[in-house]
Amino acid sequence: MHSSKYLQQLIESEIASYGFKGKPDELYEPIHYTMMLGGKRMRPVLYLLAHQMFGGDPHRSLLPALGIEVFHNFTLLHDDIMDNAPLRRAKETVHKKWNADIAILSGDTMFVQACQLLSRVDEKYLRQTLDIFFKTAIEVCEGQQIDMNFEKMPDVTSEQYLEMIRLKTAVLLGCSLQLGALTAGASEHDQRHLYSFGENTGIAFQLLDDILDVYGDEVKFGKQVGGDIISNKKTMLLITALSEANPKQKVVLDELLNAKNFDPAQKVASVKNIYDELSIREKTTSRMEKYFHKAMTNLNAIETDPQLKQPLIELAEKLMVRES
Amino acid sequence: MHSSKYLQQLIESEIASYGFKGKPDELYEPIHYTMMLGGKRMRPVLYLLAHQMFGGDPHRSLLPALGIEVFHNFTLLHDDIMDNAPLRRAKETVHKKWNADIAILSGDTMFVQACQLLSRVDEKYLRQTLDIFFKTAIEVCEGQQIDMNFEKMPDVTSEQYLEMIRLKTAVLLGCSLQLGALTAGASEHDQRHLYSFGENTGIAFQLLDDILDVYGDEVKFGKQVGGDIISNKKTMLLITALSEANPKQKVVLDELLNAKNFDPAQKVASVKNIYDELSIREKTTSRMEKYFHKAMTNLNAIETDPQLKQPLIELAEKLMVRES
Repeated sequence: MHSSKYLQQLIESEIASYGFKGKPDELYEPIHYTMMLGGKRMRPVLYLLAHQMFGGDPHRSLLPALGIEVFHNFTLLHDDIMDNAPLRRAKETVHKKWNADIAILSGDTMFVQACQLLSRVDEKYLRQTLDIFFKTAIEVCEGQQIDMNFEKMPDVTSEQYLEMIRLKTAVLLGCSLQLGALTAGASEHDQRHLYSFGENTGIAFQLLDDILDVYGDEVKFGKQVGGDIISNKKTMLLITALSEANPKQKVVLDELLNAKNFDPAQKVASVKNIYDELSIREKTTSRMEKYFHKAMTNLNAIETDPQLKQPLIELAEKLMVRES
Repeated sequence: MHSSKYLQQLIESEIASYGFKGKPDELYEPIHYTMMLGGKRMRPVLYLLAHQMFGGDPHRSLLPALGIEVFHNFTLLHDDIMDNAPLRRAKETVHKKWNADIAILSGDTMFVQACQLLSRVDEKYLRQTLDIFFKTAIEVCEGQQIDMNFEKMPDVTSEQYLEMIRLKTAVLLGCSLQLGALTAGASEHDQRHLYSFGENTGIAFQLLDDILDVYGDEVKFGKQVGGDIISNKKTMLLITALSEANPKQKVVLDELLNAKNFDPAQKVASVKNIYDELSIREKTTSRMEKYFHKAMTNLNAIETDPQLKQPLIELAEKLMVRES
């Protein structure tokens, strides 16, 4: 049994040895740059954890696991163009460092590479692997579009928000786990529960992200606290606050959201004040815990030695108590 | 034996019935719009022609053939963003009609759909189909990047140009034919020759495009004649002229290429004049014919009833004598 940490190192060295180089340089340098930016490598680790849970050898399944990581990084690369994001993991984004055309085309190439890597699974699991992966890839695109739509929608319900984060973030975690299990010969029952475990953990993970953006420790979180408030991002916190505010609070919130000129620190403090009055932190935490418990129920339903589930439980717990 | 025309209609009605619809609308409307823009459907027709050549039934192989068409349209969609093209088949491009973000994401989704459709081949051909398709997809991205690089390069050789059009255009024709043949059980020998037939036809096709842009009939060609000259596009004609011009012609050409303010018709006439002095049309035509003959040699090498090759010969000849 390998730990998450060991598997992460395995992925990291596989990325380094795979290299992601080629000609023309203008196409491959941004890919190499993107893949070397680091990160938790959460998705391939989940793939390998699920894989070893059913007797698979992680050392022999690195390529498909890496495929998931390449796919994830491709989505970040294209999302960063759409969000006009200047930084990713504290480094310049590809479309800023090079340009948008190069970011589009390098991203496209990464998607093909992801498919090539994914298709390195054992012949007998190839079709199922592709069916699950392509379905998920489509859902991730749908989630990103819904997220973009939210920016122009006056009202977003918490149900719409949960569906968006399910598609944009959670399904890929579910997919990673299911594919790791499938390719190690897990039953459909176990695959389904692992998928749901990933999906529910993913939603919980994103809700925690929303909480940390407002209540996290600036240093540990690694980005400006209150960034979502400053940019009026429709997070679960804001959506809940807007739906539960009394008329007076609603007026104050609307004023804060519509202000053209404002002191950012002041805006964060004022919105936070309303959040506190409405117990938004507690309500979102309780919602998050609900998904986390669902995830644990999924894990319990899996018919395997509880010992083998331990690294997955530890990883999920670590993700849930993180401050960053 | 079905004709190219019949197969094109088959693909057209398959596109209409497949629909390319879904939610959210913002993601799927541009996909539906793109797929309905029409065109010659050359790539899926080639797939089906090769398929029936080895006993395959086109009616049962429409989905993978359609996958190639979706992939091709995805590349056009993303290329149009990079080239900032306002029109595609005389209609607004997706990034103009909607916006660049939507064009990026709809394109990404189309790429996944292409993979889903392609993977509908018979189980026993799945891995080979994917290997060939993904390799080709990477090459198409490389070709597009090299084409973008050319804009900033002072000198491009005819060898570099031929390699670029091979990657950007020709390999996908080869891939379409090879996959159609592979999935009908063709031998590796025949697959290889069909691939080369497609590749050589593709290069000849692109060279003819370069010729028609200058010497074509405006009405029949459907776009402004001389557009490549006006925009200083490095086509085989310009590359050959630059390498063969005498010092005096070189000075005139450089002046024309560097002029900031010019009368477009005057520029076209002057460049054309130098092309005529250097017999550029004849030289490019002879180069094109060389590739066309290579293609025919490939076709001759295929071990099947000559009768079955007829529709492919006719299609290639039609492409070569076209005026548009």
